[in-house]
Formats: sequence, structure tokens, C-alpha cells
Amino acid sequence: MNSLNHSAFLDRSCAENAEPGRPPAIVPVIMCGGAGTRLWPVSRDTMPKQFIPLFGQESTFQATAKLVSDPSVFTKPIVVTNVEYRFIVAEQLGALGIDAQIILEPRRRDSSAAVAIATQFALSQIGPCVVGVFAADHVVRDEASFIETCRQGAALAAQGRIVTIGITPTRPETGFGYIRAGEEVAADAYRVSAFVEKPDAARAAQYVADGYLWNSGNFIFDAATMRAELRTFEPSLWEAAATALAQATMDLDCLLLDADSFGKAKKVSIDYAVMERTDKAAVVAGGFQWSDVGGWPAVWELSPKDESGNAVEGRGYILEGANNFVSADGSLVAVIGLDDIAVIATRDAVLVTAKSRAGQVKEMVGLISARGDAEATTHQEIHRPWGKYLSIDRGSRHQVKRITVKPGGTLSLQKHYHRAEHWVVVRGTAEVTRNEETILVHENESIYLPIGCVHRMSNPGKIPLEIIEVQVGSYLGEDDIVRLQDVYRRV
Amino acid sequence: MNSLNHSAFLDRSCAENAEPGRPPAIVPVIMCGGAGTRLWPVSRDTMPKQFIPLFGQESTFQATAKLVSDPSVFTKPIVVTNVEYRFIVAEQLGALGIDAQIILEPRRRDSSAAVAIATQFALSQIGPCVVGVFAADHVVRDEASFIETCRQGAALAAQGRIVTIGITPTRPETGFGYIRAGEEVAADAYRVSAFVEKPDAARAAQYVADGYLWNSGNFIFDAATMRAELRTFEPSLWEAAATALAQATMDLDCLLLDADSFGKAKKVSIDYAVMERTDKAAVVAGGFQWSDVGGWPAVWELSPKDESGNAVEGRGYILEGANNFVSADGSLVAVIGLDDIAVIATRDAVLVTAKSRAGQVKEMVGLISARGDAEATTHQEIHRPWGKYLSIDRGSRHQVKRITVKPGGTLSLQKHYHRAEHWVVVRGTAEVTRNEETILVHENESIYLPIGCVHRMSNPGKIPLEIIEVQVGSYLGEDDIVRLQDVYRRV
Repeated sequence: MNSLNHSAFLDRSCAENAEPGRPPAIVPVIMCGGAGTRLWPVSRDTMPKQFIPLFGQESTFQATAKLVSDPSVFTKPIVVTNVEYRFIVAEQLGALGIDAQIILEPRRRDSSAAVAIATQFALSQIGPCVVGVFAADHVVRDEASFIETCRQGAALAAQGRIVTIGITPTRPETGFGYIRAGEEVAADAYRVSAFVEKPDAARAAQYVADGYLWNSGNFIFDAATMRAELRTFEPSLWEAAATALAQATMDLDCLLLDADSFGKAKKVSIDYAVMERTDKAAVVAGGFQWSDVGGWPAVWELSPKDESGNAVEGRGYILEGANNFVSADGSLVAVIGLDDIAVIATRDAVLVTAKSRAGQVKEMVGLISARGDAEATTHQEIHRPWGKYLSIDRGSRHQVKRITVKPGGTLSLQKHYHRAEHWVVVRGTAEVTRNEETILVHENESIYLPIGCVHRMSNPGKIPLEIIEVQVGSYLGEDDIVRLQDVYRRV
Repeated sequence: MNSLNHSAFLDRSCAENAEPGRPPAIVPVIMCGGAGTRLWPVSRDTMPKQFIPLFGQESTFQATAKLVSDPSVFTKPIVVTNVEYRFIVAEQLGALGIDAQIILEPRRRDSSAAVAIATQFALSQIGPCVVGVFAADHVVRDEASFIETCRQGAALAAQGRIVTIGITPTRPETGFGYIRAGEEVAADAYRVSAFVEKPDAARAAQYVADGYLWNSGNFIFDAATMRAELRTFEPSLWEAAATALAQATMDLDCLLLDADSFGKAKKVSIDYAVMERTDKAAVVAGGFQWSDVGGWPAVWELSPKDESGNAVEGRGYILEGANNFVSADGSLVAVIGLDDIAVIATRDAVLVTAKSRAGQVKEMVGLISARGDAEATTHQEIHRPWGKYLSIDRGSRHQVKRITVKPGGTLSLQKHYHRAEHWVVVRGTAEVTRNEETILVHENESIYLPIGCVHRMSNPGKIPLEIIEVQVGSYLGEDDIVRLQDVYRRV
């Protein structure tokens, strides 16, 4: 690990944009460390919902990164994520050509710790500035309106308000928290009179009638103001975050927070820690279409539907049913005579739920996890910095994977004590190191790697390399890998 | 094909059992040519429900074969099946050590043609005798009671009655036909007053109150009597069947009916063709537990259930739901907040249906088939006379299969024009013929079969041989096989 040196972080400083009468530029912070359990089985620990292309070709993380990429409004973004997702984040940003400072959380904390880290990072790198904290798993459908709302928020933040982005409700939703707006402080902007918990249906209807706003959980604030409030309300959390940042190390262009210090930060949301306690809270009313994609019913809401209200992704069939959501990825799905359900079929797990009960998906995942079934947290397709692999067959003494290596990708130099491997190249060309040899293996060629041999595979070509790996042995766990060298520093 | 020579068919003749006062022995005919669409996706054309171990370790076909194996009551059985299922039938009988005469239908007709074939076969081989026709896809739970019912039926059949086995109803089932019993002709045996179609719920309750019986669709009759009735009611069908049998050929110990003649037999059930028209119809009332396994609700009925009425096969989870049937084969299945549904998940297709609408599964399979999705009729695991294969991965230019070869099994000598194959042995030992060579390939060894080479694999060992086959090429269809020799005569 290199010592910390990130003084050259921001190429677009806030000061440049600080023209008279113009809102200050916003340092966008994209939070994407969550596990996304509510969209199981598509979303799991190994690839949570913010990185999955739920709508169209891009993930919501990518859509968020694009949303805050207008240089007339935003600076270069800061991405705060779990260390496990570093390669996914880098890959998905790379695909968009977006440059960001990635900060890695070595443990799962709640949003206050991430806000504290981003605030302190911005202050240390830029000095006084306005920060916008954006969730990576939300969907915004009107970009111009969103940006206008952000500009309003930034103007208020510059005046010392801690601004939350509210959404003008379009229905009496029971799945969101609400905000009661107080005194108007600018056009479409108000003091926060109260934050209100998720209501029941009757209360939700009343809130909508009374002009309450949805609480989107996206914030804009002046960094020094937030620092002062965190120091006041959560001094030990601030201390832990500031120390974790001061002792962070650079690791392949990412900033890895010090694990011990970060682990001392309390698990508390920024809503509880600051927003509900500060007298500086304000809300700007966004008029854009927004969703927190908080469960399968929300995905159904956002998906195109037929005249019966059915939304079908993939090879799904519905015979006499209405208002269903069917996602058939891998398996074909057939539904007969049922309404208002969600069926999500992946290669290895199927969820069937009443849409009204989709809030219990998290509880279900807990049940599955408690019984030790890996499908609770692990996908069959696993992403690695060099590409990905998919488990396609498993027996008592063999396992088969389809491995895809990106052009230029290199697996670690490794050996196994309990298994031999047969690699058959089905697309592209592999450069294989086997003990002292280096061998090019072309499409429709194979190579054998006996137990204990030191080996490595890389893709020297211009197209993805695909191989079928057949492992044979008495123990086939992922932990039977002795990594001797790794270009991604996973040794 | 050998010429027809099956004079040595019956080693246990009927005459032996024809002692005074004792019912005549029954020649059991097991009908197992159906496609079993109503239990899709587990049951498909390539392996229909009667051959699947739905309950315990044995298929209903095997359970039926055992049920009619008591030599004091039954002779050696005749199995009438579709030519496609010949190897499955032989394998499943072999596993039980049961010897049978297998008659192969080259086309799908209805039950009248099969009854005519079996009747004529029994007459030509044995002479006068009593025949019992049994469905291979029913479940009987009290063997002693079943056999006693068969003996009663045989006694009546010997007196010239065509006997259908009725079942004393245990509930007002709407999924079965009913029989109104007339004059009592023996203990628990009656003339048939009327056959009644599947009723609605109100009528079903009335029928049960009025003492109607369920019509099980299993029959016992004197062969000459049935011949006379078929000749009277369906003379051209009888003629077609008799000709198909007379022109049948022996094929690997099976009797293959002449396709052209058999194709001329009308598609009509034995109920319509004979039972509803003859004045000889009688019914014996069976008191045993019986099901025709006519759909997923019937499987649920027959399965062990928890205190909420949920029946779960495999890795299924139910959170707040009652009276559900969940079958998780391959995939894990999670159900939340739904009652009275059936979820059947296989490796490649998932059915989710209201139990009350499970009768529409057949319609759904028609929809899927019409759109050209192979899952309507084809399993991922395909049985062959030498063993089976499972498709585990497919790309644009590659396909991967797990192939299992039984001890002594031999694939055909073949070649492909469009694909090369890599075989990796993961269990057992393969004897591989490649052009002029014969090579033993052991566990953890591989062999390459270039495009166009003539090759064959067999299992010379004592344990099943398992190989992973990686196909690489521009066309990977099953029809790119040129079979040069085949021990199972599939050339």
C-alpha cells in the first residue's frame, strides 16, 4: 500500500464556480455500500442492487453517476463504497468514462459514518464547499428537474441550511418517510417542521392531502456546517471517521479507510444523527419522478406493463393474472390465475411473493441465511477484477465453471492442494503460465493443470477470453487457492 | 429387426391358476405411453410423469408394476408404451427385476387402441384369459385392498362382465368422473347405471351423498368379451390394431407395432368406445386410497404436510402462507404471504399457479410450445439407452454437458461435421474409440475429438462413468450426429 497522497484530488475546484448570484458547485458523494437485500434474489451481497441493470442497460449506480456529471453544477464525484465492491465500482465508472475518487469502507457502518468521511475528505482536499450526498440505488426520471432542485439546494446550503431533497408525492405511498414542511425560506424550499416515519395507508393519504413531501434521503449541505453538527451530536463518531480517513492508505487509486478506527464509528443513519436534531434542516421540493427502488413492487411500478398491469422481464408467461411482476432470468417462468404477485427467478433461486408482502423479503433472506443456504448472499456469477466466473455444475468430486477474462485481465499466480484443473478455451486466446512454461492456448484448445502446479491465466487479446474450467479433486472450496502473486494486490 | 416370434411369452399361464372357486389369474396390462402435460414442468414429453419418482424413490410406473406382481393373482405383465419410452421402461423394470413383454406404439393414439392391442396379444399368446388394464400414473396406497378388488373384478370378468374399478369417494372431488351404481351383482359389485362426467362442486357433493363411485379408469375383462365389444362398436379400430400387431416386429426384445396400420386406429378412449356403450359394464367398489395424480393439487394431497398444510419438496421456504405445494428441484424457492398455490421449480422452468387453476397447466404448456420455447416438451436432462446427459451451459459457439454412462453402456459410433469435443472424465473410466485408436481415459484425464473424427465412448467399468463434454463449433444442434453404428439400433 502506498502512503496517503491525494492532494491532487479535485481538478474542478468549487471556487471556480463561485460566481456572484450563481449557486456554488456541488461536490457529489455517491453512497453505494449497501447490500440491497430487499431485491433478493437478484440483489445479494456479492452483487447488490445498485450495481445491477434493473432498468435498461445501466445500473442505478451508473445512472446516478451520470446524473451528477454536469460540470457546470457538479465537481468530480466521491464514491463511498464497501471494500468488497471496489472492482465493480471501478468497472462501472470506467464503462461510462467517469473519473471519481473512490473511498473504501472496510466494514459496514450506517450513513452517518459515510457522510462524516465524505465531509472531512472534501474539507481536507478542497476547503469550504457544498457537498451533495446521493444514494446509488434510486431512480430519477427527469434529469433537468433534478438538477434544478440540486441548484436550489446548493443555494440554501451556502446559507447554512442542511438541505434534504423532498419529493412532491404522486400517491399515498406507505413505503416512504414523509416531511412536514414549515416556513417557506425560498421558492419551493421550507424549514423542516418534522420528519415523519413510514405511515399506514390512512395516514399516508392524510399526509398527501396536507402537502407533506416524501423524504428521498438525498442531502445537500455546506461541509463545515455538517462537520459542526456531527461534532455536536455525534462527537465520537466524527472522531472515529476523521481518524479512519487520516490513517487511510492508497490502494490501487482507491482510498482505503483504516479498519480499526472506522469500526469504532456508531451505526446510525444521518437522519437520526443529524437531520432530526439540527435546527438547520430545510427541504427543497423536487417535482421529478423518483423512486428508492425499495422492493419488488417499486420495480414493478417503474417497469413497462401490459394492459393487464403485468410487467414481464425475460421469458415469462402469465395466463389469467393481473398486476404481476415476473422476472425470468435463466429460467422460464409460467404464472396461472394469480394477481398482485412478484415472481423473480434466477439461475439458482426463485422468490414468489404477494406484492403487498414484499417488505418481508429481508426477513426471508434472514431465514435462508440462518439455515446456511449460500443463495442468501452469494450469486452463481461472481465478479472479479479480471472478469467473472459462473458456476455451472457441481458434483461430489468435480466442479465446472465458465470463466470470462477481460482483455488485459490476469488472474493471480496460484496453486491448489486438492484439485487439478482442465481448461478448455471456447473463445479468445489465453496466455497460461504453468510452472516454468508460458503457453498460448487458442480457441478449441485445452490445457491441464495438475494438482500443486503453479499457474496463472491472462487474456493478452482484444476480445473477452472464455474458458470452461473443469476442476477434479476431493476438495473444491474457493479457499483452496494459494495466491503467490496478484496484479490486483489480493495476495 | 427380427421377424415376430413371441410364442414363448407367458411363463405363468392363466390355466395354472384356474382352480375351481378361485378367480382366474389376471394378465396385467400397464399403459404408460402418455405425455403427462398436467404435471409440467417436472413432467414433459422427454420424461413424462409416470416415470418420475414423484413420491419416494420409485416412479408410479414402477409402483404399478410392483402392485401387479403377485404371482398368485397376476401373470407376467404386458407394458404398452410409446416407442420413445422404450429404454426408460426397460431400465425401470430392470431396476425392480421385473420381466415384462413390452409393446411399443409407434404413434400416440388413445386408450382404445392400446386396449385392443393388449387384448389381441393376450388372445394370440394365451388364448382365453382375463386381462386387467392399469394406468401407470396412478397412486394406490393399500395394496392388499387393491388386490382383493382385482380378484373380485376377475371373478366378475370371468362371468362376462367388463369391470371398471370404482373408488369409494372420500371427498366431493370435481376432478374425477363418477359412476352411478345400479343393481348389485356380487358383494361390492354392481351393474353400471351411468358414467357421469366431472361435476361442479355442488353436484360432486350430491354424488358423494348419493353413493356414486369415482371412476378410476382401470379395467378388468375377459379378453374374448372385449374383442367382441370392440369389433361391434369400433370395427375399424379393432382391424387397425389387429393388423398393427400381426405386422409387428421384434426389436431388442420389444414388440414394435406396425406404424402405418396403428396410425389408422381412431383416437378414442376406451370409456367412450366401449364402457359407455356396452350392456356388460360392471363396477367393483375399491376401498383403497387412490389418486390419478391428475395435477399438482393431487400431488399436494398425497404429500406429507406441515401444520399449516404446506408440502415442501427440496429447498423450499414458506413465510406466512398455508396449503401450498412447493417443489424445489435445482433452484431454492422462497414463498411469502401466499396461500393455496403451487410453485414447481426445475433447473430451467418455474410454474407458479393457484391450486384451483392448476387444470390450466396444459393450456399454459400449449402457449409455451406455440412460442417455440423448448422447455414445453424437453428436459435439460435427457435419458438415453446408455445413460443420460444434462445440458449445463450454452454459449454462441460452445455447449457443455455432463454425460453419465451406465456400466456396460456404449454410445453410438459417430462423427460431427460442425463441432469438436473435449471430454474430461470426472468419475470412472472411459473406453474411447477415436478413428483407428482405442484409448482408456481415466478419472482426471481428458481426450480431444477433432471435427470429423469417428468416435465412440463406452463404460467398461463397474461404476457409472461421468464426463464433462465441452463442445466447440459454429453449429451445436443435436442433429449434427452421423451415427455409423449403434448397439441400440438407432442408426
